[in-house]
Amino acid sequence: MSHRPSNPSFEQEVRASFSRQEAMRLIGAELTVVEPGVAEITLPYRGDLTQQHGYMHAGIVTTIADTASGYAAYTLMPANSQVLSVEFKMNLLRPAKGDRFLARAEVLKAGRTLTVVQANVFAQSEGEPKSLIATMLATMICIKA
Amino acid sequence: MSHRPSNPSFEQEVRASFSRQEAMRLIGAELTVVEPGVAEITLPYRGDLTQQHGYMHAGIVTTIADTASGYAAYTLMPANSQVLSVEFKMNLLRPAKGDRFLARAEVLKAGRTLTVVQANVFAQSEGEPKSLIATMLATMICIKA
Amino acid sequence: MSHRPSNPSFEQEVRASFSRQEAMRLIGAELTVVEPGVAEITLPYRGDLTQQHGYMHAGIVTTIADTASGYAAYTLMPANSQVLSVEFKMNLLRPAKGDRFLARAEVLKAGRTLTVVQANVFAQSEGEPKSLIATMLATMICIKA
Amino acid sequence: MSHRPSNPSFEQEVRASFSRQEAMRLIGAELTVVEPGVAEITLPYRGDLTQQHGYMHAGIVTTIADTASGYAAYTLMPANSQVLSVEFKMNLLRPAKGDRFLARAEVLKAGRTLTVVQANVFAQSEGEPKSLIATMLATMICIKA
Repeated sequence: MSHRPSNPSFEQEVRASFSRQEAMRLIGAELTVVEPGVAEITLPYRGDLTQQHGYMHAGIVTTIADTASGYAAYTLMPANSQVLSVEFKMNLLRPAKGDRFLARAEVLKAGRTLTVVQANVFAQSEGEPKSLIATMLATMICIKA
Repeated sequence: MSHRPSNPSFEQEVRASFSRQEAMRLIGAELTVVEPGVAEITLPYRGDLTQQHGYMHAGIVTTIADTASGYAAYTLMPANSQVLSVEFKMNLLRPAKGDRFLARAEVLKAGRTLTVVQANVFAQSEGEPKSLIATMLATMICIKA
Repeated sequence: MSHRPSNPSFEQEVRASFSRQEAMRLIGAELTVVEPGVAEITLPYRGDLTQQHGYMHAGIVTTIADTASGYAAYTLMPANSQVLSVEFKMNLLRPAKGDRFLARAEVLKAGRTLTVVQANVFAQSEGEPKSLIATMLATMICIKA
Repeated sequence: MSHRPSNPSFEQEVRASFSRQEAMRLIGAELTVVEPGVAEITLPYRGDLTQQHGYMHAGIVTTIADTASGYAAYTLMPANSQVLSVEFKMNLLRPAKGDRFLARAEVLKAGRTLTVVQANVFAQSEGEPKSLIATMLATMICIKA
């Protein structure tokens, strides 16, 4: 799918908004790609983000998928609007083990009010093919100023 | 619903597992209630857990709801088993603003392999009635040792 | 939760809308309860609604849960509006076997644009306690005329 | 993704199972594609399958998406097993209007017990490009005989 953003400064707005997310700073997430209808976030493994078996916590994996989904939607929203998560559904496909994690979100359907996004989360380790560990289907809402 | 746990030391196992979750320590979450088919987690507000508008990040809210759901399911699983999240769906009902947050998870259906759990997350502020901010429907799987 | 409908003729509007749903007539579903924030639909078992093992098809069970959810939301919407399903998530808890099925939907959060609803589907058989066979968490949208 | 079926007669088993689904006969659905990890179902528009605005009922659209998802998963399950829907989440992207509808399901992750499937539903009308009207993320379980 190709999307045409209505806000010419979508990338600045997305990056400015991301930089205000204290939770992203806490966990060490970075916003690596911002394109029309697409956002990617990367997160290196850290021992203080794990669940009881030493893998990344499903909630942390969800946090980067949700954030990527919100910003993928936000790239297509008009200037001076805000984006909020309405709901998301996450399937955890494999244990979240790896050196780093990449959440890639793509807009499936952009509407005036609601935008539906799919996000995939991949685990990456030195010398290994990347592995799909989780997939999210999310609904975002545009709040006009 | 009333549930009969098959593992007499379910509470110790849940609490021991929770204490190994480094992500819970990082965000400051506490496991406050562990009963057959039920678990509650509380999380005080902290500025470093927020999204771009200063509310608690939906991913962090999801992290405590997922953890509570997993342990609610785990209370009913046999000794020497493990619990993993298969999937969950989260509806974010109101902005996550408040002094503290409570995720309460209750088992809807416990099966030998899969357990379905509902979790509600409430915001609490001094002198105000608690407010339902999110609701989760989750599927957990029992991995036998 | 108690809800105050803004449309005094919500019940007539819901019943009129339901009567235009040809799919409900085809499967033999009846709208049995319409109250502020609540709707119930009943569906007798029929052999032509089954899946490969002779139980009611999950899609048919979903059809009555979705319809009940939409109308539960619609009871709280203003006059001259329309309701559409944005999305739903369904957990199938037990095989859909029974003489009749009841979908009961209740609004969790009614908003100006979006309404979140939970629906439970029960199986009922002569001389047996009713059994929860499925649960849905749904998001509905209000379209103003 | 390419999948290797363990059951050499997967196609016959899927087709035999589909032919026992009375609900598919009632609504006029046809199983058009059965490949490793993939299934497609088509459904012509019919006035008796509609909701209150004359479009195909979301529940009916879900019925073909769920069935396609189940059979996509079933193609990869061992001989003499059964498939059941654990849960699914459906996003309704556009009104279900068109001459015919196509649900295409593809396995995202096949496991010994659980299989995760994505299904897209497209509307097709004479002389128009096909349109994505709904997307499903589903979890299926393999029941061994």
